[in-house]
Formats: sequence, C-alpha cells, structure tokens
Amino acid sequence: MSSSNLRVALVGSTGYTALEVARLLLTHPSAELVVATSRQDEGKPLSEIHPMLAGRCDVALQPLDADVIAKSADVAMCCLPHGASAESVKQLADAGMRVIDFSADFRLSSLETYEHWYGVKHPWPERIGNVVYGMPEFFADEIRSADIVANPGCYPTSAIMPLAPLVKAGLIDTDDIIVDSKSGVSGAGRSPKLGTLYCETNESISAYAVGTHRHAPEIADLVERIAGAPIEVMFTPHLTPMDRGILSTIYVKPAGKAGSVEEAVRSMMSLLRDTYSDQPCVHVVDHLPATKYVAGTNHVQISVRPSGKRAVIVCAIDNLTKGASGAAVQNMNVMFGLPETAGLLM
Amino acid sequence: MSSSNLRVALVGSTGYTALEVARLLLTHPSAELVVATSRQDEGKPLSEIHPMLAGRCDVALQPLDADVIAKSADVAMCCLPHGASAESVKQLADAGMRVIDFSADFRLSSLETYEHWYGVKHPWPERIGNVVYGMPEFFADEIRSADIVANPGCYPTSAIMPLAPLVKAGLIDTDDIIVDSKSGVSGAGRSPKLGTLYCETNESISAYAVGTHRHAPEIADLVERIAGAPIEVMFTPHLTPMDRGILSTIYVKPAGKAGSVEEAVRSMMSLLRDTYSDQPCVHVVDHLPATKYVAGTNHVQISVRPSGKRAVIVCAIDNLTKGASGAAVQNMNVMFGLPETAGLLM
Amino acid sequence: MSSSNLRVALVGSTGYTALEVARLLLTHPSAELVVATSRQDEGKPLSEIHPMLAGRCDVALQPLDADVIAKSADVAMCCLPHGASAESVKQLADAGMRVIDFSADFRLSSLETYEHWYGVKHPWPERIGNVVYGMPEFFADEIRSADIVANPGCYPTSAIMPLAPLVKAGLIDTDDIIVDSKSGVSGAGRSPKLGTLYCETNESISAYAVGTHRHAPEIADLVERIAGAPIEVMFTPHLTPMDRGILSTIYVKPAGKAGSVEEAVRSMMSLLRDTYSDQPCVHVVDHLPATKYVAGTNHVQISVRPSGKRAVIVCAIDNLTKGASGAAVQNMNVMFGLPETAGLLM
Amino acid sequence: MSSSNLRVALVGSTGYTALEVARLLLTHPSAELVVATSRQDEGKPLSEIHPMLAGRCDVALQPLDADVIAKSADVAMCCLPHGASAESVKQLADAGMRVIDFSADFRLSSLETYEHWYGVKHPWPERIGNVVYGMPEFFADEIRSADIVANPGCYPTSAIMPLAPLVKAGLIDTDDIIVDSKSGVSGAGRSPKLGTLYCETNESISAYAVGTHRHAPEIADLVERIAGAPIEVMFTPHLTPMDRGILSTIYVKPAGKAGSVEEAVRSMMSLLRDTYSDQPCVHVVDHLPATKYVAGTNHVQISVRPSGKRAVIVCAIDNLTKGASGAAVQNMNVMFGLPETAGLLM
Repeated sequence: MSSSNLRVALVGSTGYTALEVARLLLTHPSAELVVATSRQDEGKPLSEIHPMLAGRCDVALQPLDADVIAKSADVAMCCLPHGASAESVKQLADAGMRVIDFSADFRLSSLETYEHWYGVKHPWPERIGNVVYGMPEFFADEIRSADIVANPGCYPTSAIMPLAPLVKAGLIDTDDIIVDSKSGVSGAGRSPKLGTLYCETNESISAYAVGTHRHAPEIADLVERIAGAPIEVMFTPHLTPMDRGILSTIYVKPAGKAGSVEEAVRSMMSLLRDTYSDQPCVHVVDHLPATKYVAGTNHVQISVRPSGKRAVIVCAIDNLTKGASGAAVQNMNVMFGLPETAGLLM
Repeated sequence: MSSSNLRVALVGSTGYTALEVARLLLTHPSAELVVATSRQDEGKPLSEIHPMLAGRCDVALQPLDADVIAKSADVAMCCLPHGASAESVKQLADAGMRVIDFSADFRLSSLETYEHWYGVKHPWPERIGNVVYGMPEFFADEIRSADIVANPGCYPTSAIMPLAPLVKAGLIDTDDIIVDSKSGVSGAGRSPKLGTLYCETNESISAYAVGTHRHAPEIADLVERIAGAPIEVMFTPHLTPMDRGILSTIYVKPAGKAGSVEEAVRSMMSLLRDTYSDQPCVHVVDHLPATKYVAGTNHVQISVRPSGKRAVIVCAIDNLTKGASGAAVQNMNVMFGLPETAGLLM
Repeated sequence: MSSSNLRVALVGSTGYTALEVARLLLTHPSAELVVATSRQDEGKPLSEIHPMLAGRCDVALQPLDADVIAKSADVAMCCLPHGASAESVKQLADAGMRVIDFSADFRLSSLETYEHWYGVKHPWPERIGNVVYGMPEFFADEIRSADIVANPGCYPTSAIMPLAPLVKAGLIDTDDIIVDSKSGVSGAGRSPKLGTLYCETNESISAYAVGTHRHAPEIADLVERIAGAPIEVMFTPHLTPMDRGILSTIYVKPAGKAGSVEEAVRSMMSLLRDTYSDQPCVHVVDHLPATKYVAGTNHVQISVRPSGKRAVIVCAIDNLTKGASGAAVQNMNVMFGLPETAGLLM
Repeated sequence: MSSSNLRVALVGSTGYTALEVARLLLTHPSAELVVATSRQDEGKPLSEIHPMLAGRCDVALQPLDADVIAKSADVAMCCLPHGASAESVKQLADAGMRVIDFSADFRLSSLETYEHWYGVKHPWPERIGNVVYGMPEFFADEIRSADIVANPGCYPTSAIMPLAPLVKAGLIDTDDIIVDSKSGVSGAGRSPKLGTLYCETNESISAYAVGTHRHAPEIADLVERIAGAPIEVMFTPHLTPMDRGILSTIYVKPAGKAGSVEEAVRSMMSLLRDTYSDQPCVHVVDHLPATKYVAGTNHVQISVRPSGKRAVIVCAIDNLTKGASGAAVQNMNVMFGLPETAGLLM
C-alpha cells in the first residue's frame, strides 16, 4: 500500500465487528489497518485471534494507549462495549484523533434516555446530543467535519432507513408502528455464552427482549431527529439461525383516509425511490428482500407491500456490514473525503 | 405388532408430512402403517424414497385404489395436494374408510372463500362446511365420530391456538391482529424447486406471500368458528433457514381501556393457562418459546409479553408434527378411542 | 406411569446427553426419570435448564448424594466429565446402585493407556479392565448382570460397529486403517466456549485433534477386545455444522491378494449383514448412509464401496442417541430385562 | 468505470459460479461485466435471476452468439456444463476471443480419460492436451499467452495445491494417497434437484460418488503433470451442510524410511512454505484450516500434522472462489497483464 494511505486504528479487536473492519480494510484502495488493540492478547498477531487473516494481515495487538495510537493512526474505529467505549473515545479524541464509535454511547439525543436504558452513568455526558449519527444517507455534512461519529446500531439501521422518509413525508401513521426484526447470531457478539452456542441457536428461531430492547429508543430517537415527528414504535428482535443479516418486517398504517392501501403502497415505494435515488447503498426493489441478497455487502434492500389495511415494509441489511463495520468504513470515507463506497463490496 | 393394531394407509407417500407419519407410526403402540401409495414409485419399498426408514419399515408402494385400500386399512392419512386431495378423499370415504385429510380442501367454512383463495373448482362442494377441523383441543367430540377430518394448516395452528381463546374471552381487539410467522423450509414441501434449494434458503431469512397467503383466511375462519367473533388478521409468513418449526409472533391490542398492558398480559396468560390446563400438548410458559423447544414433538409453547401499548404473543410449534403429521396422529387417536397422545413424543 | 416402573436417576443434568436421556425416558413405556442432580442449579426444575421439557417433566434438581439417590432410584445414568465421573460412579456403586457411566473412565482395558491419554490419576483403578463396554451388539450377556456399564464413546461406536466384525473375520488388513469422522457440534458439549459458538462453527468444517484424539485408543482397544487382533488405526475427527450425527468414512485394505476389490466389498457387506441380521439397531444398507437418515434414532447405517485398491466403509449414527444416550437406554433395557429397544424411536 | 476497462462476457449466467464472477467483477478495479448470456431468460436483467445484484449490475441477458459477443467483450468466462461448454468455447475462440472455461472439457491430458469418465464424445478433441490448466501457481507463463484456459475443478484445487509440490520433492509415497473431501452444497449447482433441497442436505453429512467421482482422474493427471510422477489417489467427496467451502483431509505416507513422522511433517511444511512463499493466495499455516477461514476469498490454507505412521494434510478453499470464479478472475488477470489479485478479496 502507498505511504499516503489513511491509517486506521482498530480499538478492541476480538469481536466480529472488528474482524469485519479488518476484512474490509484489506481491500480498501486507500486506507490501511496499522494499529489493533486488545487487553488480553497483547503482542499476538491479530491473525491469531482471527485465523481468516492468516497471511493477509500482520498487525500485532497492542494495549490501548491513546497518545501512542494518535501518533501512528489518523482515525480510530472503536469496537468496545457501551460505557467502556465512551471513556476510550474521550481519550482518543483528547489525543487529537477522529473516532468512529461502534457502541451506543453517543447515539441517543438524551442523557436520561441513555442512562435509563443502559443502566450506567455516562462517562462523558457533555457530548450527548452533540455527536453526529453515522448514517451518511442523512447526515453526510456533519459527518464530513465530525471529530466523533456514533456508528448506528444494526437493528436501527434496518428500521430507520425505510421509516424516516415515510414519516417525514407524512405517509404513515406515527402512533402504531410495529418492527418485527430477525437477526443472524453474529449480532450477539463473540463472548462465549450458553445462548449463542451452536446447538442452542441452530435449527431454532426465537424472540428475545420483547418490549425491552435498547434499540427501540434508538429507532424512535433517530426517526424523530430525521423526520421531525415523534413516533411510537414497538420493536421485537428475533435470533435467527444464520451468521449474518437482519430482516425487518415493519407494519405501518397509511396516513389519512383517502385512497386504497395499494395506492398508499405505491406512494411509499415512489417516495423511497426518490429519497434514495442518489444513494449508492440503498435499493428500493420490487422483489421481496432476503438477507442473503445483501450478505457481506453494505447494501440495503427495501420493498413495500399491501396487506389488509396496512402496508408491510421489508428491509434487509447485513448486520455486520451496513449494520456495523461497513457503515463505519462508509463514515470514514466521508470523514476523510474518500469516495463514499471505497473498500466496500459494491 | 399385534394383529389388533389399527391399520393405517398413507395416501401420497413422497413428501415430508408422509415421512413424518411413517416415523411416528413406527413407535405407535397400537397403530401400524400397512399401506403406502405413490403414483410414480409403485412397487418400490417406502424406505427407498425415504432412506431413514431403511430396515425399519418394509411397506411397498402401491397405486391409489380406494377399494383395495379399504380392505387392508382402517384409516387413511391423505397427504395429497389441494384439489387432488378432495377427489381421493371422496373415493376413500365412498369406499367406507375414515380419512384424515392433510390438504386445505375441507378446512374452510365457505366454498366461495375456498375457490377464491385456491383458484380451483372444489370437487366435492357438498362437504364444505361439513367436515370437522382436526384440532382436538376444540373439536374432540366431532372428531371422535367423524368420517373425514380436515387436518389443520401449520401456520394456522400456531395462530389459532393462542388467538381463539383470547378472542372468545373478549380480551383482545379483533380488528388489528398482526401475525408475523417464521417457518422452517420443510413447510415448502419436497418437490425440487429453485426457491427451496439449500443454497437459496440457507443463511437467509425472507418474507413471502405478503398479504396473499392462503393461511390468512384459515386463521380468520377458525378463530371465528371457535370464538364466535369475526377478526381481521394480517398474516406475513417468512422462510427461515431451519428444517422444522414455526414461530408466530402475534401483535394484539388488549381490549377495553381499563388497566395497564402488564395487567392485560397477566389476564391473557391466566386465561390461556386455564384453557389448556387439561390439554397434554399445549404449554403456557414463562420463558420465551423457541422452535427448538418443540422440535420433533407435538407440543405447543405459548407466552405473552407486554410491549408498549400492545401484547406480544409468541407461539412455537413443529410444523411437521403439531403442524401436520403429529396432529393427524392425535386426531386418529381421538377418532379410534386410543389414548390421545399415543405414538407422539410426549 | 405405573408404580412398577424402573426408576432412573440422572447424575449430571445440564448437558446435551442428559437432556437426551430425559427426552427418551419421557416416552419409555416402563422406565421413568425420578431423580436429576446438578451442582449449580439445585432446587430448580430440570425444565428450567432444558426449556424443551417445559410441561413434560417436573423433576427438581438435587445435589449428588449417592445414599439418597440409591433410595429413590434403581439405576443411575452418570453424565459427568471423565475423572469426576469415576468418583461418583464408585459412590453410587458402593451405595448399591447399578450405574451406566457416560464418561471414558471405565472404557479402556488398560490403566496406563487411560492415564496416558486422559492425563489424570484414575480414582478407582481396581475396576479398570473389569467393567463391561456397553455395546449390547457384542456384550449383551455381561451387560445383563453388570453393576457398572461403560457407555461407549460416540466416535468409537461409529468405527467399532463396522470394523470389529471385519477384523474378526480376517477380511481386512489390520495395520493401516484410516477413520475420517465428521461429527455434529453437540459432541463438543454444552459448556460455553469460543470454539462452539454458532458463528465459529456454522458454515464451516474443520479437522481437530489430528493424531491426538482420545477416541483413537478406544477404537483400537475395543476392536482388539472383540476381534482378538490388534489394529493400527489413524483417526481424524472433524467438526461439522449440524447439531447431531457422526459420519465415519473408513478406508481399509481387503486382506489377502486373491480376488478383486469389488469381490472383497461383497464379502464385507455379506459378513456385516450376517453379523447384524438379528440386531434391531444396525442396518447394512445399499445406499450411502447420511447422518440425517439416523438423526434422533438409535439406528446405525453401514455400507461398503470399492474405491481403487481399498474398500470404503461409510457408517452413520446419531452421536447423542446411539453415540450416547440411546445406547445408555439400550444398555439399561438389557440390564433390567426390558425389551432391548423400549423407549427408543424404532 | 473507465472506458479502458477489460470487458468481460459471462457465458451461461444462471448458476452460482456465474453469480460469483459477477460479484467479483463488481469490485474489480479494471475489469467490467459487459455481456451475460442465457438461453432461457433472454432480455431479463441479470439481477432478476440473481436478486443480490439488484441496483448493482444492469446487464441484460442475451443469447449466446459468439460473433456478437466478440465485438463487445475481450474475454469470455464460460460457465456451461461439460460437453456443451467445449462447443461454445470453440465458437468463441474461432470468433477471436480469449476464453476461460469453467467446465472439465479441456482439463485432462488424455482424450480417452475424458471420454471414459464423462461419457460423451468430445466436440473438439484436437485441443485435448493442448490447453493450459488455469492454476497460476504452476502455469503462469502459459496462462499469460493462452487463448483458452481450463479453469480447475474445485476438489482438484484443494488436493493438487498441497500434493503436487510434495510429490515433486519426493517427500511422500505416490501409491496410496487418500483424499477425503468435504464440500459445501453450492458445488452441486443451482438446478433444482431433490438431493440439494434444503431439507435433504441441512443437518446432514454424506459421502457420494465413492470411487467414481470425475475429479479423481483430474487430481491424478495434474499432480503427474506438475510433479512428473504418476500417483494413485483414492478420492471420496462428501456433501456438507454449508453454502461454500471445501476441506480436504489428505492421508499420505512419508517417503523413505529414515526419520520420524514428526520430522517428515516438518519437512513437508517447510517445502510447502518455500513453494508458496511468493504466492499471494496460498498460506501454509500452523493452525488447522477451517473452510470459514477462507470463505468468500481466493485464499488457500494448508497445514500438515502427524498421525500414527502417516501425515495428514488439511487444505481449505472456498469452492466458488479459489475453486471456480476467483481462480477464473486470477487467470484473467494473468492473461491480461493485470495485477494477479485485482478484484479478489485479499
């Protein structure tokens, strides 16, 4: 790679989103992974904890020292758990780095909402409400100049992308939106837990965190921020026996009384097509999306169909790519003036 | 097996529900598979088209001749496609056999609804509205004396079991019920089709037949028949990368305005517990059901949780067992005065 | 169930083999689970740690006290890890119980081999070489009167069943036998570990413990014990993305020089057919076995094919059933004079 | 893309290898898919038969007319079945195009071997033995100037890569090599067949074509061509429940008698490391390869371990990438003087 490459530091390297960042950077034409940190595995090559990187990436794991990292890298991708993440983000930002934070620590507008749902004191409350949400489709200008970008949650991405434009255009009722989401198991992380063992999740689908998942307030917050109107959203996540992918099936009521549901659906499809016509990653399609159609890519597929009195929106993303690391690379590209989809499988 | 065993004929033997019938009968203490028919594979042993039966079942495939079958068997399990099924059911019934029909041909109350949704002329319209629906939890008395039993659809089973008692008790609104169902691939049958190839469905979840699936009218029809009130149900099926299982996530509004959603959910759980307290196959549970918890069994797990203004019902069944062949064996047991769960994995 | 049922104690209840024992006993006509022990979860219902038992089994977990258990149960199924297991087996036997031990502690003939491969001091060395190996196909008489039965390992079952008769009959060379085995993930147990997380094993096949797996000496030991001749076996296990099943592909050389490989294969098939003609669980088949053909059952499918100068034996079992808990129930049936396949899905 | 891009024609577009070519070309920096042919789906966009290309590729399907294609494209990737492929390759070559043929039609050295194993008359026998085998690791010079390249088979790639150097160096016996290969289901193609339905292959592993698979002679032929010595290879393929990947477990005997197996294994590892030190796609690794470690990439992972008297080689590739379409892109890059790994995920 050329010496003029953008130098990327991976902060927190053991999880699936970290691996996905490394994987994407391997083919990025003008960015390069130069630093990877880990508490437990200091000194080991990154490829030892992620054997698919064998022979492809020889970065050695180092401890998280913000000042040291700031000397070697231009941007940090922070893949730490919430709470812990905000502290590191602060240190990295104080050391002068631009940071993309994968945690939920800076995504919400309100400190109270954060502390209520995440059950922790926020380590850097001043920045709440003051960090851009890393969805370039809506916030590209702020991202361009941001010091910190809050990388979106996976489920929220699959819900906000279709809902925000429809709410903004007044095409759907805002008080009874149901988001039924199905996620691959990688969304549950790489820490060994009974619930994500192969034999617990394989050949099984289950709902979890019904009525209590932290991504519900994130969806509502962002749709309101983008569309300017509060919504009521009921969100049910499901664990699905596959590695990757989120399919959100969203039940909405067409606003107003005029016209048939079929007409309303056509208006929605048309509005979504217009909204995303210039966006390289979002595709409004006639077929019904499947997670396989977007697996390993940063693409989003959206379609809308009538069903009784409601419209059913189906949205598919890859939870690790557009739902996490791909979005982070896209954000990085925007922050540093690179082509928006560089390094992404397009 | 004893010579006094109930003798069962399998009519249409190549599919997954037929295999499941054969599998269950192998361990049934007092019923026995004695006939299996197939158009294409006449003369072959059943175990040649289902190699898991090798050494376990030596029935040879024969053509479908109702009079011949009636001499060898006491009851026919008819696993043919809709339309074709009704004709064979008529022949078998005319030959004096009692028949359990796996198709949709006799499930609906109304000929018009049937012909509208299935797009065929019904070959035996006189019997529409005049055949018991094979759900012993609600229709045991009629099943006991029935000549023909319409075996329930897989998705409908997962929706009717929780919805019917709640509607009957007036605990939920009837005009905005959303059923979001996720099924294993075996529900799509064993005919080679692009859409059910391993590499098309593995690692992918997708919605299909949004707003147009034939099980929507079956759910509505049966809930109305059991509960005495019409409902509006929006039904979205999904293809899930697993062999077996249906998980239905059902979004309902508590009826009336008094009390919190939490209280309404408690009332629903309590009513469902009472309804099914004597039923050996239905379990109202505190944990969130997963399809794995009922895989290979005739059991149903149901739970209800609050989420915003709605209650979320989660119901898990095995689509091939309680959703098809297990229910058929249960119906057969009731029809012939055997213990209701004989031959089922309890 | 009747009060004259055989009363079974499950010692060590949290793993997959324990669940499989419980599942099988639910449909056993004359045995019943009456005790289940667990160190961590004392007092909880067994169904809380295995939610598929909800509403089906209400045994509460109790601590392992051999004298207490001996008063309530007739036989103990001991599902503890090696080393720990031998100690408990001793206590249970001392308390007068008959015990089926799932661990490797009493499988091998030689103390030295055991201590070399398992790296622990054996807590009850006197019994080494003095406990029957629980394979009723070869040791039914000893099992009938045994106080302790060493339940076979999963991989060894899939190798011993085809190899022992062929070696005994002198049909194959004994010095270059290659066993390439593929197992479902349940064989790796239910303790949360990185290597058995869904996203580590799904969509991947890998070899492990090449040249170092403890089941290699078990295969050699038992083939020698049954066939009376030492063999050299090279054993390579693989982790396969499925819940259950072992497929062993075994490469052998026909003994002697006379005749073609095709003829040798016919002799092998014929000998295996004769050997197992009266065995209810072993099927020598013309088709190539697949693990799906035996999933959830106690059946074994074996076939032999020519390939170049060698014969290829393919043997399929379910690792949790015939490879563990099903064999244990079969052993129990033999020990207590019940029909050999009672409670097994036949 | 720039107008100076290499223009690629995809001949035969409906299968998984064709999709993989399209997927890889989407991110290729200097090649572009400009033509795609299909008999059945003329006029449709390629993205209609491969919905993951929606919004990413708007090539319309056209009939196979060699002269028309030769005017629009520089190189043809021919993804047709054997027999049919040779005819089209001839037409395309006659029209002046350079062709990469995915079929087996030009892979073997001998017409007799081809016609024996493939059971068809070869349509262009003059070229047998006269087309380069598309494995740039061994034949880069011939590929550079080739008019036609025979793209390697998937299984052979996983066997030849480790075996050829070891045979050439005389490190292993050539008369008793056993290749036990496990492939994902995509290797079986995209035509609807019973055997590749989800519910037939999921949760199951099985051997097939034991002793009769056409890739056995291809492995032997190429190892002999590269290493200069004939070998005897026994090859057993297995269908594994995953989309992609091949793991080959290869049992070899160290040549000569001097030294331990451990030493022999070290020599093999060392020789393989030297052989592939400059190759960007081949990695000799200390860990045991898994197919997941190379999924979606053009990489090969190889390791060798001792086991008894033998050495066990484990080799992992992605059957659709290095085993088919990735190798084809690599070949194309070599043919046209592009960087060898351009467009491949490295």
